[in-house]
Amino acid sequence: MTPRQTRLIQSLADTLPDRAIVTDRTDIAPWETDWRQRWHGTAPILFAPDSVAQVQAIVAAAGRERVPLVPQGGNTSMVGGATPPADGTAAILSLRRLNRIRSIDADAGLAIVEAGVILADLHAAAAAVGRRFPLTLGSRGSATIGGLVSTNAGGTQVLRWGTMRGLVAGVEAVLADGSLYDGLAALKKDNRGYDPNQLLIGAEGTLGIVTAATLRLAPAIASRAVGWIGLASPDDALRLLRRFQAAGDLVESFELLPAESLAAVLAHVPGARAPLAGEHRWHVLVEAVISDPDAPSPAQFIERVLVQAIAENMVEDATIAVNEAQAEAFWRIRDSISDAERATGPAAQHDISVPVEAMPRFLIEAAAACEARFPGTRASGFGHLGDGNVHFHVRAPRGADRATWLAEEAPVVTRFVDDLVVAAGGSISAEHGIGQMKLAELERLSPPPRMAMLRAIKQALDPHGIFNPGKLVALAPGAVAE
Amino acid sequence: MTPRQTRLIQSLADTLPDRAIVTDRTDIAPWETDWRQRWHGTAPILFAPDSVAQVQAIVAAAGRERVPLVPQGGNTSMVGGATPPADGTAAILSLRRLNRIRSIDADAGLAIVEAGVILADLHAAAAAVGRRFPLTLGSRGSATIGGLVSTNAGGTQVLRWGTMRGLVAGVEAVLADGSLYDGLAALKKDNRGYDPNQLLIGAEGTLGIVTAATLRLAPAIASRAVGWIGLASPDDALRLLRRFQAAGDLVESFELLPAESLAAVLAHVPGARAPLAGEHRWHVLVEAVISDPDAPSPAQFIERVLVQAIAENMVEDATIAVNEAQAEAFWRIRDSISDAERATGPAAQHDISVPVEAMPRFLIEAAAACEARFPGTRASGFGHLGDGNVHFHVRAPRGADRATWLAEEAPVVTRFVDDLVVAAGGSISAEHGIGQMKLAELERLSPPPRMAMLRAIKQALDPHGIFNPGKLVALAPGAVAE
Repeated sequence: MTPRQTRLIQSLADTLPDRAIVTDRTDIAPWETDWRQRWHGTAPILFAPDSVAQVQAIVAAAGRERVPLVPQGGNTSMVGGATPPADGTAAILSLRRLNRIRSIDADAGLAIVEAGVILADLHAAAAAVGRRFPLTLGSRGSATIGGLVSTNAGGTQVLRWGTMRGLVAGVEAVLADGSLYDGLAALKKDNRGYDPNQLLIGAEGTLGIVTAATLRLAPAIASRAVGWIGLASPDDALRLLRRFQAAGDLVESFELLPAESLAAVLAHVPGARAPLAGEHRWHVLVEAVISDPDAPSPAQFIERVLVQAIAENMVEDATIAVNEAQAEAFWRIRDSISDAERATGPAAQHDISVPVEAMPRFLIEAAAACEARFPGTRASGFGHLGDGNVHFHVRAPRGADRATWLAEEAPVVTRFVDDLVVAAGGSISAEHGIGQMKLAELERLSPPPRMAMLRAIKQALDPHGIFNPGKLVALAPGAVAE
Repeated sequence: MTPRQTRLIQSLADTLPDRAIVTDRTDIAPWETDWRQRWHGTAPILFAPDSVAQVQAIVAAAGRERVPLVPQGGNTSMVGGATPPADGTAAILSLRRLNRIRSIDADAGLAIVEAGVILADLHAAAAAVGRRFPLTLGSRGSATIGGLVSTNAGGTQVLRWGTMRGLVAGVEAVLADGSLYDGLAALKKDNRGYDPNQLLIGAEGTLGIVTAATLRLAPAIASRAVGWIGLASPDDALRLLRRFQAAGDLVESFELLPAESLAAVLAHVPGARAPLAGEHRWHVLVEAVISDPDAPSPAQFIERVLVQAIAENMVEDATIAVNEAQAEAFWRIRDSISDAERATGPAAQHDISVPVEAMPRFLIEAAAACEARFPGTRASGFGHLGDGNVHFHVRAPRGADRATWLAEEAPVVTRFVDDLVVAAGGSISAEHGIGQMKLAELERLSPPPRMAMLRAIKQALDPHGIFNPGKLVALAPGAVAE
């Protein structure tokens, strides 16, 4: 423990209950490493406050003693965003005990939720009042609201409901001097200058500690239909999506899969079956929902659009799940891709976006460019076509040694892919954020005016650099290790 | 002209064409005063660039010479946001010549539009490709895109489409050092840290000069229906709105009017007729639209909801316009309220918002509180109930002298109303912005942590204070004159 850290604990001993200051190595250890065991840090202190006032006291004292704080929720970052630095100079600030749902108003469609509430618990609370929170992702059993706000999380319903930015109606956060910013009021219109909420959403805990958020709830689903579609190209898939959207506002998910992703699932996931009998180069999973039980059924809606699309040769074949079990089976294929592809061998994975209209071409051309540049690799993207966001994987040549390839080849592949993304006007982080993993690439690829803005904002709101050091934006240019 | 201004012109003489530097007093005069003639300033120079490179050159030189720039579009600010300071130290930077629609893509539903494009021209361009830009307001014939972005403009379609923030998919802006920030790529998902676009939207030109924006287009309207509804209370109106929303996503406008607003229109607007035969304490204008010509008609949709609402005594009486002429007549009543109320006498006007659920109670209680505190006044609000945003007017006692009352009483009334708004968790500027008019009230009523954030952001991105001085946020506390 550094002298600064010792002084920090001493200065808080009278203010905080004992259980809010954890220094036992065994208790801290699980939180020093990310869930995928890729990032390892050291923190001699873990703060576990259970009130906003305690968070304020911790931040104020940390600011005085210049001890950096690494905010942490469910520790499910994909980019090392919640792992402390290795040098042991920081403290972890866990928000998990700040876990009350302060209010939930079905009529207004709003809930005020503290940072430590787990996403699945919010789903349950919303369902209990006949509503739903329309954002979900694989880590819903451990991801917390504070982390979801701070990473502007996405998922499979973004097409219809947007990312967290679209679902957050208000933010409460502790600022660098320990003061409390209260932006919780759910105002649909508010033109009192720069909106601090918009800055805090997606800031990865580098500008303030999000302690609560006001979230929008959607009507509960009365009925859903899930279809599986075989088609020849991503271009046809995008045209099909536009047809669905022109016909109504019912489509919540529209996930694109190449044949090789489906093949990987069929090969590695027990019990998985191909939804269609024939072979297709590309596949789409579509889900349509209705909230009004009296509205025409979403299955009829999907069918109506598909019949016309088949007649126009936009679609090769299609089926609609006949029951919930089959619908779940379709979704299980989509949700198993990452695991199945991992089982097929090592890959360089990229969470990227380009403008939606550019994605079909990007998928074809970037895959071809990768395979040409790195002989023996196989490249393809799958995911949220309607958001212009795919997970673009470049698999190692057959027989490559996993550890060697990931350590030596994958970073080169990643820089190549990132260059293609930038050339297409896209983003090297569509939904996972920057964290530690993409910091060097952000520095390398951001135009200087943009990077200067990010640095100026960070410097302005966290002048002593106490919030989540080494994540998202490095204050001094060149301080980032490759 | 100050020595700094003289040097500025000299330094730009070689770079800019002559017509981009205006110093003729007669040519500048119309732009030194806002359109309502409430704010008067002086600027010995007006820059009128017609390229982004020229804007960059002007900003870079102005930064070196420390000459503040007042960006201006259509000069239709409601809060003095585009009027130069009276001391003559600034220059006006008119963006009106930067008026190209760079691209318009009907399939993608996106247009890249320069700052000087007039809203009505964008409406026409979108219609020409079978789309529409779903934001409109009274000043559409002169308001420009740059101003609409910079003020996060609202209007009567916010209920369905959101404010400009929801319609802006990308922003291009010149920063304080003259560098160009290019955030035009329309990425639906992009988690590369703080989003500069979100900061520039609604910044009133105080952080950068918006030169272009990527805007979302909506499907063209296939058919619309407009209804007029009489009811007993704002509470019933909000319940009715929830019914409409639960029944489908068709309602684009839902405007609330008290009986006195309707009476003012009937008394002062030639040809205006009451849509309903009986007397009602409150009225609602509702508009529903469909984009798919094959969808059930919006009139049927309105009727279906109203029949049930009448059966439950939520609605007293209602009618649906039988043709476009009648629909236009209903809208003309709504659009004439401000003029009609002006004809009835002086009033203190407030563009305010509170959380939507709190608005019915606020309307009743705030009106009662005002009338009790200021005997002889009559207070009421009208407008965008579904956005939690009304225009709350407190009319002077009968016989009061207009000039005296506006100068002496109205400011006291405004502070009283603003206090009520803050107590209800609301915003003293829902859609008009802060500009010069609300600067003192923003300082008075903002919690210090929020105000400190605004100042820190301004200081970080405009360190020499060259962008729109004296608007939105004063850098030094206490520098604002009451």
